[in-house]
Amino acid sequence: MSPLTARNPNESDRDAQAIAAAAAVGPLFTEIDHVAIAVDDLGAALDSYREAFGAVVDHRELIDDDGVEEAILKVAQSYIKLISPTRTDSAVAEFLAEGGEGVHHVAYRVRDCAAALDVVRAAGYEVLDEEPRRASRGPTAALILHGTLIEMVEA
Amino acid sequence: MSPLTARNPNESDRDAQAIAAAAAVGPLFTEIDHVAIAVDDLGAALDSYREAFGAVVDHRELIDDDGVEEAILKVAQSYIKLISPTRTDSAVAEFLAEGGEGVHHVAYRVRDCAAALDVVRAAGYEVLDEEPRRASRGPTAALILHGTLIEMVEA
Repeated sequence: MSPLTARNPNESDRDAQAIAAAAAVGPLFTEIDHVAIAVDDLGAALDSYREAFGAVVDHRELIDDDGVEEAILKVAQSYIKLISPTRTDSAVAEFLAEGGEGVHHVAYRVRDCAAALDVVRAAGYEVLDEEPRRASRGPTAALILHGTLIEMVEA
Repeated sequence: MSPLTARNPNESDRDAQAIAAAAAVGPLFTEIDHVAIAVDDLGAALDSYREAFGAVVDHRELIDDDGVEEAILKVAQSYIKLISPTRTDSAVAEFLAEGGEGVHHVAYRVRDCAAALDVVRAAGYEVLDEEPRRASRGPTAALILHGTLIEMVEA
């Protein structure tokens, strides 16, 4: 019995093949890059994280294209990203209107975003970006898996 | 003008004092310990993370007290924790029934959980655990801040 079937006896041959293919490439994620938390009031949330946790602001940034303002707090090699809408028609404004404040997405660092996209697609998973998008820190691509918006950040 | 008021001109004297107090203690979080994702079917979610991302299972654990089964995937010094209910009356089962699969909580590593709890309370924030709870890896305490369930894990 292989270690793969030992882990999950219900997996199909296709699953086993896809897992073996992904394992051959190796883990795509080199770090939790950031956890993004949608908040109504960026200043108030920033104060909370500073007051409650002594969190240190790395920088603050206005991303006009996405209609959000972000505040970045550093935690070891990762970040907490507090994001707040600057327009009512931004995706984050819609997220807040629907479910209120909370985790918006989880971003993982990858060595090569285009290659990571290929691996995800080859395994049969849908992606939101067919090609990496240019972001402030490097190429980025998104997908949704088990209800979680996942970003892969080349950094 | 102090750096604090430069950051947020609207903060009150109380805010400034609390921030200065927290800053004196220093950042509480030494690492994003894990991101916990509630899923309906642990085996299926595990297969997805392995197939799509080449993620490697660190271990799998049944936590009877919480009515969940967990699968832990390692990412650098952090973890992705996939959690699935084993009972319909568990908190995770309720979470899934209400909003479906998605990020359940974010856990940050701290040096001293009891001391971290004191800092959070001294800053005037409510906590869900008045004292650290014993968990498999070490003392743990939870709070909710801006819609996010946050766990502080001493590890």
